[in-house]
Amino acid sequence: MLDYTRVEGLGADDVARLRACYEPLTQSVRELIDATIRTEVGPDEVAAATAQIDAATQRLRRAQRETSFGIQFSADGDSMPWGNAVIGVRNPSAPPLVIRRLADGSVRSDFVLGAAFEGPPGHVHGGVSAELLDHVLGDAASAPGVHRLTGTLTVRYLRLTPLGRLHAEARISRTDGVKTYAVGHLADEHGPTVEAEAVFIEPRWARQ
Amino acid sequence: MLDYTRVEGLGADDVARLRACYEPLTQSVRELIDATIRTEVGPDEVAAATAQIDAATQRLRRAQRETSFGIQFSADGDSMPWGNAVIGVRNPSAPPLVIRRLADGSVRSDFVLGAAFEGPPGHVHGGVSAELLDHVLGDAASAPGVHRLTGTLTVRYLRLTPLGRLHAEARISRTDGVKTYAVGHLADEHGPTVEAEAVFIEPRWARQ
Repeated sequence: MLDYTRVEGLGADDVARLRACYEPLTQSVRELIDATIRTEVGPDEVAAATAQIDAATQRLRRAQRETSFGIQFSADGDSMPWGNAVIGVRNPSAPPLVIRRLADGSVRSDFVLGAAFEGPPGHVHGGVSAELLDHVLGDAASAPGVHRLTGTLTVRYLRLTPLGRLHAEARISRTDGVKTYAVGHLADEHGPTVEAEAVFIEPRWARQ
Repeated sequence: MLDYTRVEGLGADDVARLRACYEPLTQSVRELIDATIRTEVGPDEVAAATAQIDAATQRLRRAQRETSFGIQFSADGDSMPWGNAVIGVRNPSAPPLVIRRLADGSVRSDFVLGAAFEGPPGHVHGGVSAELLDHVLGDAASAPGVHRLTGTLTVRYLRLTPLGRLHAEARISRTDGVKTYAVGHLADEHGPTVEAEAVFIEPRWARQ
């Protein structure tokens, strides 16, 4: 059983206020991640930057939750998956993906992947493509209040995906009892680079 | 064709010196990522930390490569995939995995995944599991000087993977011309949580 925490007394205004507080911090850390990978400054500058970073970390750790972020809900039922590795607005390692549901029920996300997502030189790590497609297909297969977890994911690499501006699309292909099948792809401006299909399962504990 | 850069005049000592310079910086940023997700300090503290982070970023950006890190080689042929999303010692978003080759030719990596890798509350994001297995299977299928890229990856989720101490294993299951098949799994202390199989292909340009 998973722990989905409802934060009592937290309204929509509070959620907006928390987001306005923490999202710019997260975006700053994303910039720092990119700079850390690409910097060519020498040891003295690196040491000075490291000291500044450690000071910031110490400041942030003055009050912190004991565990990972989890998924918290406001009193209104707004979901805050803010620590999520793919979509978390408080997770600097997340791109983060913003996923839109289109009129035909499919989902789409447009995003930019930089130096932090590299595998082959200048290209997206194949594992990152799999990671993002798992999430986007899972989103396509999900509905409000229904927990679905990935059963099997198959990813087919058509060609290398260049770093830069990309998008992902996914849709439900069929349903069969507690199983929902989804298909999708990752694409650059020239078309699909990676295709995926997956089956998502509503776990027994979530059906009860 | 991929750009693998050989850095002229860069010896083993230089590689060690560069690593000693940049690896502690990267580790500091990893701590900061964790603190950013978990912090509960208020707006004033967040603003102060953000200013410190932006100052560090600005310092690091005084000299930086124009593009992503790529894969650089020393004059001795040492590979430095330091920007890699899974194993990069200069990529704060990477766990980073350290992969050992065992006597039987299989590979194994022991690692800890924290708040930055979360999907379901308290558990590893299914996409992250796929990402790491793609890399570990690819490592098992690779040999020095042979470029292999993922053709198809299939990931089967047996149960949820808790955040914390984990390991991954992989080995070649068979080869067929330019195709190499590998299998592997992710496991916690109680055994496998996610299984994967993949076929890796040596691209035409790498065979010429």
